[in-house]
Amino acid sequence: MKKTFHISTPDEAILPALQSKIDNLTKPKGSLGVLERLAKQIGWIQQTLEPTLNKPYNVVFAADHGIADEGVSFSPKEVTCQMISNFLNGGAGVNFLARQHGFGLKVVDGGVDFDFPPIEGLIDRKIRKGTRNYLYEAAMTEEEAELALERGAAIVDDCRAEGCNIISFGEMGIANTSSSSMWMHFLTGIPLEACTGAGSGLDRAGVRRKYEILQRAADNYKGDRSTYDIMRYFGGYEMVMAVGGMLRAAELGMVILIDGFIMTNCLLVASKLVPEVMHYAIFGHQGDEAGHKLVLDYLGAKPILHLDLRLGEGTGAICAYPIVESAVRMIREMSSFHDARVTKYF
Amino acid sequence: MKKTFHISTPDEAILPALQSKIDNLTKPKGSLGVLERLAKQIGWIQQTLEPTLNKPYNVVFAADHGIADEGVSFSPKEVTCQMISNFLNGGAGVNFLARQHGFGLKVVDGGVDFDFPPIEGLIDRKIRKGTRNYLYEAAMTEEEAELALERGAAIVDDCRAEGCNIISFGEMGIANTSSSSMWMHFLTGIPLEACTGAGSGLDRAGVRRKYEILQRAADNYKGDRSTYDIMRYFGGYEMVMAVGGMLRAAELGMVILIDGFIMTNCLLVASKLVPEVMHYAIFGHQGDEAGHKLVLDYLGAKPILHLDLRLGEGTGAICAYPIVESAVRMIREMSSFHDARVTKYF
Repeated sequence: MKKTFHISTPDEAILPALQSKIDNLTKPKGSLGVLERLAKQIGWIQQTLEPTLNKPYNVVFAADHGIADEGVSFSPKEVTCQMISNFLNGGAGVNFLARQHGFGLKVVDGGVDFDFPPIEGLIDRKIRKGTRNYLYEAAMTEEEAELALERGAAIVDDCRAEGCNIISFGEMGIANTSSSSMWMHFLTGIPLEACTGAGSGLDRAGVRRKYEILQRAADNYKGDRSTYDIMRYFGGYEMVMAVGGMLRAAELGMVILIDGFIMTNCLLVASKLVPEVMHYAIFGHQGDEAGHKLVLDYLGAKPILHLDLRLGEGTGAICAYPIVESAVRMIREMSSFHDARVTKYF
Repeated sequence: MKKTFHISTPDEAILPALQSKIDNLTKPKGSLGVLERLAKQIGWIQQTLEPTLNKPYNVVFAADHGIADEGVSFSPKEVTCQMISNFLNGGAGVNFLARQHGFGLKVVDGGVDFDFPPIEGLIDRKIRKGTRNYLYEAAMTEEEAELALERGAAIVDDCRAEGCNIISFGEMGIANTSSSSMWMHFLTGIPLEACTGAGSGLDRAGVRRKYEILQRAADNYKGDRSTYDIMRYFGGYEMVMAVGGMLRAAELGMVILIDGFIMTNCLLVASKLVPEVMHYAIFGHQGDEAGHKLVLDYLGAKPILHLDLRLGEGTGAICAYPIVESAVRMIREMSSFHDARVTKYF
């Protein structure tokens, strides 16, 4: 990797003061569970007893995948491009959630296999019209991978410039659960079969066939097995852009809200490149895709929600946002036992 | 029970149309998981393909318990009364959540052992200054139980008059996990020990002592074991008010958002009195109190959140509200495959 990201570990000196403030709010100690853990993490990231969430953004990276030609997905490739119009028209899953929780939305063409006319709202960062088919060759060149990291990072800079300090990433790309499974398998050592799931709706036989294709791709892989090489060999442009985005967000001290199976694997790659990125990550949900729980466990993650979601686009991350906001409101707005003149009842 | 509640089962004829609408939204079938289930339930309750949530309210009923004299709780009884001031001043857990999600809040004195001066915002429905000690006698008379049901129901009428169609209930009452454990034990048949937990913060020895006191109370009980008798013998005024409130809300066709251990046991009682109340219930969260998972399983409930909360006050219900709102927005706002011209990809 040529591009470097300097991610620091937040100063731990503030942790006792954060814990003490949380313990003195008018509630039995620990009784707000996950909210208390989140408030402590965000206070630590922001180095303050009064954390805030500003201008949340969800960035949807879209791209196509050469491996889709092998029939690994239930959905035809044309759906990637159709769904972009749907995002821009406000009718997709990510849209109603973004509206509900006040998220800005950026839709980025990272490599869709379609020549869009200039469309209001679509951010053109296309690297190529879809990756190569990694059954036979690397999905992208080193130069393309570098460009994807840089372009993903630059989008985060744009969000930051608007005041954003909490960001989620989503994706749209038919066949990208396959790329995720390959990353997960090679980087965690978990058997490929356990990393392979139904994606947008394969039946049992379809999952079996998908697994067999991916196993052939794994057998054909002759690279150096470094994180960087695995990333570019099996990755999608949208996914490498998300990796770059996450690393840049952490470098900027932003909170990163992690979506489902694909984004969790992007964080996995990011954390293998720069481990400190993990300090900035909050896991939005555990989804329904086989393998998601396994990669979350590998990362030691405790996701906020368990809603059987498997849509992607950032939907699971945005769904979890109000819980994160509750945590911040808790530590900012609740009275202490002392101020409220309540007997400390724990 | 003298007061009667006429709760209907919503017409199931609308269910196929609801399912069809949900299946034709631009997402893989079933990929919004719990949101899809909630949208269907709310559409069914409201008998419409365009459900809405209006003027959400959280009602906190507060009261004291005679059994607290036996030392079953970690917290002194004075906390009930102090916390009421905290609610009215906006500094408690329930307050920041109510502000965040636009809930109206009603704080009701159902039987606190304190003579409040008239306080702005406190709704005086005091039945008695705390229940009797059910180690030796029934906590409340039949007349008091009837009054509590009626007063709880009347508060819901007030909310309804303001346009509310979704309501949650919370409580504040030192020792009310004990009453909940007694209800749960007698109405589900689950051993009392499994129904007894740490409440606001007992240690292991404290939980053991609490259990022994409750077992003595169970042994001393000589009533007819009807739901109504168990309700009044072991109940708190705040809890019976919540039972009345839930039954009235269901009678009015409102969505009921269920909070933690205590409110789940109030719904248990309500469902034993009028089973149809269950159609209107959405379970907000599975809390950290021992026994909560068991009573949820008994009711066949699938709670939305698992956040290790154990505060009460309605906090777990309100925390779950944005997910319920997401469900309603999904079915109202997402495009169909047809309208968005997306190939149906499932």
